[in-house]
Amino acid sequence: MSKIITISREFGSGGRTIGRKVAEKLGIPCYDQEIIEKIAQQSGFCEEFIREKGEYASSGSKFFNALSASYANGLSMQDKLWIEQERVITEIAQKEDCVIIGRCADVILQGKADCLKVFIHASMQKRAERVEKLYGLREESTERRLKDKDKRRKAYYQYYTDVEWGDVGNYHLCLDSGELGIEKCVDIIASAYKS
Amino acid sequence: MSKIITISREFGSGGRTIGRKVAEKLGIPCYDQEIIEKIAQQSGFCEEFIREKGEYASSGSKFFNALSASYANGLSMQDKLWIEQERVITEIAQKEDCVIIGRCADVILQGKADCLKVFIHASMQKRAERVEKLYGLREESTERRLKDKDKRRKAYYQYYTDVEWGDVGNYHLCLDSGELGIEKCVDIIASAYKS
Repeated sequence: MSKIITISREFGSGGRTIGRKVAEKLGIPCYDQEIIEKIAQQSGFCEEFIREKGEYASSGSKFFNALSASYANGLSMQDKLWIEQERVITEIAQKEDCVIIGRCADVILQGKADCLKVFIHASMQKRAERVEKLYGLREESTERRLKDKDKRRKAYYQYYTDVEWGDVGNYHLCLDSGELGIEKCVDIIASAYKS
Repeated sequence: MSKIITISREFGSGGRTIGRKVAEKLGIPCYDQEIIEKIAQQSGFCEEFIREKGEYASSGSKFFNALSASYANGLSMQDKLWIEQERVITEIAQKEDCVIIGRCADVILQGKADCLKVFIHASMQKRAERVEKLYGLREESTERRLKDKDKRRKAYYQYYTDVEWGDVGNYHLCLDSGELGIEKCVDIIASAYKS
């Protein structure tokens, strides 16, 4: 059975960077954007739709709401995307040891792979600093953006998995990247994986 | 400013053992039973009362309920114990680097010491196995005992600190001791402390 690291993360906590560095350190692949590409190839959904709708509950975007609410064969587009996402992640996990970022992989792989389930979080202040440094300021306040992203990710996770996103009991390791720093988080995860 | 490790833990997760081993590994003292002794010396409260009422909300025990509900100078006995506990923990933290087990030390020391805040948890099954191995079976089911302990500890913590016990955002490190094992938890905490 493959040994997988799943990384769930608050927006702006650096979870994606940590996942990539862990994979590099361990010499195993990291799946993130690659999952989106695979789903796009196999399903015909466009990458933007997958990126947004494969992790987040609906926002105010009229286009996405209309698209995800449209039904075919009794399933909404978002439900179809979930099924495709589940299939792609299961395939990846069965093939090899790897790191998978987000996309509910921790719950999808329950019982299908040997997972080290990690959650990365940080204070609002630290996350806002990081997001502003990486993506710059926008019209909307950074704090509001972060809260909106977290809220929609949590709602999506809860709806499709029946598990509470960010609940300590669902993870083997929860790390405050703002306090511990990115490099220390990488070391801790790699060390826990090896044991 | 002292560097402190605070260990909060679910009952039966091995948090106490982990704290002791971390302290040993780092060559710093670990405060647990010692806090109870200090409070007893300075307050006149008996150790059994401190052990129970300094971490848990009221259970069905008539003696403790009557005692903690009795008021003097507008404060219940339990409130007085909280004040004493706060004073003793602050004194300890100001004196030296150390590990402190439980007793809301993470919140008490906010802004008073440089704390690495750790939460240790494990699945109900793993905790029940551990508790039965260490303390044997009792008339009441182990699972019910564990749930009751957690519930009362959570209620106490919430009441005195206004912070939610076991909420991932309040800790720098949350570790599943059932999955990672005691020794790996010790290594991770010691390594995070050193950085």
